[in-house]
Amino acid sequence: MPIYNAPTKDIQFVLHDVLNVSQSGIPGYNELDSDFTSAVIEEAGKLAHDVLAPLNSVGDKEGCRLENGVVYTPTGFKDAFNMMKDGGWTGLDVDPAYGGQGMPYILGKAVAEIFSGANQAFTMYQGLTHGAVAAIYEHGTDEQKATYLEKMVACEWTGTMNLTEPHCGTDLGLMRTKADPQSDGSYKITGQKIFISAGDHDMSDNVIHLVLAKIAGGPEGIKGVSLFIVPKFIINEDGSVGATNGVSVGSLEEKMGIHGNSTCVMNYDESTGYLLGEEHKGMRAMFTMMNEARIGVGMQGLAQAEAAYQNAVLYAKDRLQGRDVTGAKNPDGPADPLIVHPDIRRNLMDQKSFVEGGRAFLLWSSMLIDQTRRAGDKDAHGLVSLMTPVVKGFLTDKGFDMTVQAQQVFGGHGYIEEHGMSQFARDARITQIYEGANGVQALDLVGRKLGLDGGKHVMAFFEMVKSFIKENQDNEALKNDFLDPLKQASKDLQAAGMYFMQNGMKNPNNALAGSYDFMHLFGHTCLGLMWARMAKASLAALENGAPDVAFHETKLATGRYYMARQLPATGMHLARIESGADTVMALDAESF
Amino acid sequence: MPIYNAPTKDIQFVLHDVLNVSQSGIPGYNELDSDFTSAVIEEAGKLAHDVLAPLNSVGDKEGCRLENGVVYTPTGFKDAFNMMKDGGWTGLDVDPAYGGQGMPYILGKAVAEIFSGANQAFTMYQGLTHGAVAAIYEHGTDEQKATYLEKMVACEWTGTMNLTEPHCGTDLGLMRTKADPQSDGSYKITGQKIFISAGDHDMSDNVIHLVLAKIAGGPEGIKGVSLFIVPKFIINEDGSVGATNGVSVGSLEEKMGIHGNSTCVMNYDESTGYLLGEEHKGMRAMFTMMNEARIGVGMQGLAQAEAAYQNAVLYAKDRLQGRDVTGAKNPDGPADPLIVHPDIRRNLMDQKSFVEGGRAFLLWSSMLIDQTRRAGDKDAHGLVSLMTPVVKGFLTDKGFDMTVQAQQVFGGHGYIEEHGMSQFARDARITQIYEGANGVQALDLVGRKLGLDGGKHVMAFFEMVKSFIKENQDNEALKNDFLDPLKQASKDLQAAGMYFMQNGMKNPNNALAGSYDFMHLFGHTCLGLMWARMAKASLAALENGAPDVAFHETKLATGRYYMARQLPATGMHLARIESGADTVMALDAESF
Repeated sequence: MPIYNAPTKDIQFVLHDVLNVSQSGIPGYNELDSDFTSAVIEEAGKLAHDVLAPLNSVGDKEGCRLENGVVYTPTGFKDAFNMMKDGGWTGLDVDPAYGGQGMPYILGKAVAEIFSGANQAFTMYQGLTHGAVAAIYEHGTDEQKATYLEKMVACEWTGTMNLTEPHCGTDLGLMRTKADPQSDGSYKITGQKIFISAGDHDMSDNVIHLVLAKIAGGPEGIKGVSLFIVPKFIINEDGSVGATNGVSVGSLEEKMGIHGNSTCVMNYDESTGYLLGEEHKGMRAMFTMMNEARIGVGMQGLAQAEAAYQNAVLYAKDRLQGRDVTGAKNPDGPADPLIVHPDIRRNLMDQKSFVEGGRAFLLWSSMLIDQTRRAGDKDAHGLVSLMTPVVKGFLTDKGFDMTVQAQQVFGGHGYIEEHGMSQFARDARITQIYEGANGVQALDLVGRKLGLDGGKHVMAFFEMVKSFIKENQDNEALKNDFLDPLKQASKDLQAAGMYFMQNGMKNPNNALAGSYDFMHLFGHTCLGLMWARMAKASLAALENGAPDVAFHETKLATGRYYMARQLPATGMHLARIESGADTVMALDAESF
Repeated sequence: MPIYNAPTKDIQFVLHDVLNVSQSGIPGYNELDSDFTSAVIEEAGKLAHDVLAPLNSVGDKEGCRLENGVVYTPTGFKDAFNMMKDGGWTGLDVDPAYGGQGMPYILGKAVAEIFSGANQAFTMYQGLTHGAVAAIYEHGTDEQKATYLEKMVACEWTGTMNLTEPHCGTDLGLMRTKADPQSDGSYKITGQKIFISAGDHDMSDNVIHLVLAKIAGGPEGIKGVSLFIVPKFIINEDGSVGATNGVSVGSLEEKMGIHGNSTCVMNYDESTGYLLGEEHKGMRAMFTMMNEARIGVGMQGLAQAEAAYQNAVLYAKDRLQGRDVTGAKNPDGPADPLIVHPDIRRNLMDQKSFVEGGRAFLLWSSMLIDQTRRAGDKDAHGLVSLMTPVVKGFLTDKGFDMTVQAQQVFGGHGYIEEHGMSQFARDARITQIYEGANGVQALDLVGRKLGLDGGKHVMAFFEMVKSFIKENQDNEALKNDFLDPLKQASKDLQAAGMYFMQNGMKNPNNALAGSYDFMHLFGHTCLGLMWARMAKASLAALENGAPDVAFHETKLATGRYYMARQLPATGMHLARIESGADTVMALDAESF
């Protein structure tokens, strides 16, 4: 059975050595000293290791089942869910006014990576609730907050997001679900939603659905979409759970992975719904959550890569096969362990340098969210809005690729389900799709975020890279291995942006045809920056006589690998981008 | 349900316009005129479309089952298998002396792509038999040939290959299965083999296992391995199927994909086996089949990509979502089809340019096999030996990637099993693993094939590229779009080879750490050459007034895409290679 250990040391390194959170001045971050975050992370790690990880393959094998309208989760999920509730984990970064712990988003994300790495399908139940809580917290009336939040923060009631319908996913303007206004101010919601994660299950007393629907007579298309709270069971005046509400599960979807999560077709038949936020402003209400939700999905991609990597390393050390060409490393054994072979190393280093760089990127982005929320920093908001599609698209694309590479280390043993390596890849695969497929992320990045506030935020990013390079130019240990490759990557990224400016005006397809490559070019540059910052931190730690010399030397070596072996991808992405739209759009649709 | 149509036109184009098979002078190729190959391919296409493709998802959903020692294949497989036998498809490219049709290998491969594209798990039953037939044909005694071949060519008896054991896959020297010599010249085989595709099933009267085992007292390690024929049921003197032979199925493996194929743990308990080839020369006997088997796996990767691509195109044309930014293309409908969007095009063009380039590469390599076999051409043998790991590794890596991209076109609908897109990816995934995991292919390429015959064959490849460029230098329509990028790719490949020569001597890890990138760099260069040749053929056809103008113009546009958008990867691979082994090997095993 696969193992999972929380990457405590690595998270601590990013939080304290690299981001220096407790000194950052962000309100509430002063609490985040090293002892405190270490205690939280280790506690989360214990739960992940002891409870969640062992249920991961159980969830995959059993899946959920629908019997007489009731959805049952896999064996053990309910008990584990109760442990999450009892431990207060479900409200870690939520306002104490509603029973949360009031911790910063960054700590919530660090912990979420651990739970998700141990069991993505399970952790989604509370992840979706968390998203619904954020929406009600942001857009709900005082009464709505009072009615729902405390129960949802505690996961006594869980939440969902209902966007997709059979004929529309990305293009929600085509939506058909209707909301008929009632005299009491409520609405009757009727329609069908699909792909509803955690749509129904047996682990909570109620499910609070957030449902996008069109109010009759409203504007056409996306401008006529509103958001509604539709509880599975009506809430009585006294706050108790009451009658059914015309909400039913049409079926459970059979999926490639995340079998432990109940992905439902949800039918709403004149279900009572309550407007959340303003009429016809449903998309805006959804979008305020979108940055956070998408960063959460980027986290999931990373988390699966970390989990798969840990198991690939174990196997590579354990499995004896072949001999080191430079001389036997295990001369008394029948063969050397896989890890002696350069191509296995290449594979493992790809994974290791990605997950560590990706984690720094994730936590840095999470810090920007806190800067936005807690300090009202508009520049931070702009920067994280720009970064969001990169976090989501790049970390999930690479995260999936890395689970596939980890599976490859196992050879045939990776293809059979017994070792659990297939599950990591199958579970990670969804992260490239949900919360906006990665092509949509690329479109969002190039079509919307690049030009946001007159391009101010992308300029700020370039400036950040430039000044980092300038400030550290005299650091000989950084220069060749880190600063020079980072400079090249940033130059490639700027050239790509310049190409879009010069050619996207003439024909927007010149920009859109390069959007996916731009997302990856941007992602590599961000990880390059993160590695340069981590290298700087490790060099400083070594200079300052930090006790764990091996940790910091390993960090530096891993960073050098990323800069030498991954960053050269930027040149390829730039070449593709600069080839423009001509070859991409040359064919008629009939010629495919 | 997913569709599958044989890519008849495209295969015909490669065979006749590009490879000009019937004029090639290879013995037997004169039969391969356009009408004949078209008839064969269309007939195969009919069977694939009508019978095999509809069973693909049946096989995936039902899988195989083991009951009281008997393996049952999914509903419909047996009837379909009988149709394959009755149509004479199982012996298409086998010697007529044993009931085959005597067609060249290249035609066998073209047809195999079609069957495999329609249903990989099903087609493997005869594919493995084909491999076992080749081994007995090559290494068997006259008596063995007389006993087994005719039945096996007809698939009345099917075949398997038994290499892997629980503790050894790549490193077969660790093998434990024993062969005890008997006084009658036979052996008693005892041991356990795993991952045996088509290991047992209900579609034939007997299963003829080819089993690697060690004869007691033989040399240690890989030099003591011999190959044995071990029938499930003993063959009586009169050729009829007789008594059981101590061969049993331990269990069926649960796998990520190819559920329709029975992957068995096989137990041999003093089973009677007959030496095939010489004592202790088992690996040599296996290796004579290896080029062909590995090219066959490359074909499978390509075939799944083709099948997935066809369905992605259908969906992209059918699914209405969003609007073309340059103006509505379906103004009367609620939205435009997905295919208007540049990033969907990018995705589809990646797929299309890969499958068409990959198919040319596959068929060209198959032609080299025929040149070897039918004309005894040693240079062709050397060249195809060099190409084999590239065909296997590159076509399966990219083939899998393309099935994932095809799945992505479907968004959430790609993740649920209903549309069958998940199956293409799950089935394609095995091709990167079996017949030597792709890391082993890369090792074979760099460690063995590059230096074969003093590097003669890689020099011949470079010469081939060079003279193609030189010969066509005045062809303005080819120059910028095809010859220049090909020249750059070939230059990068040569530089990589040069790096290995200069640095691999000092430290072999400098070569091995770059082996995987080299395999991909080589693959891109080969597809670049194939595209340049296809472009030349299409330009000539257009000049000669070929009737299907749209076909050739589409071919040229698709080729331009590959050259502009895929070939730039060579620079990235070269940069990775030239970064050497230092960053790859920097860490101690404990530091992972």
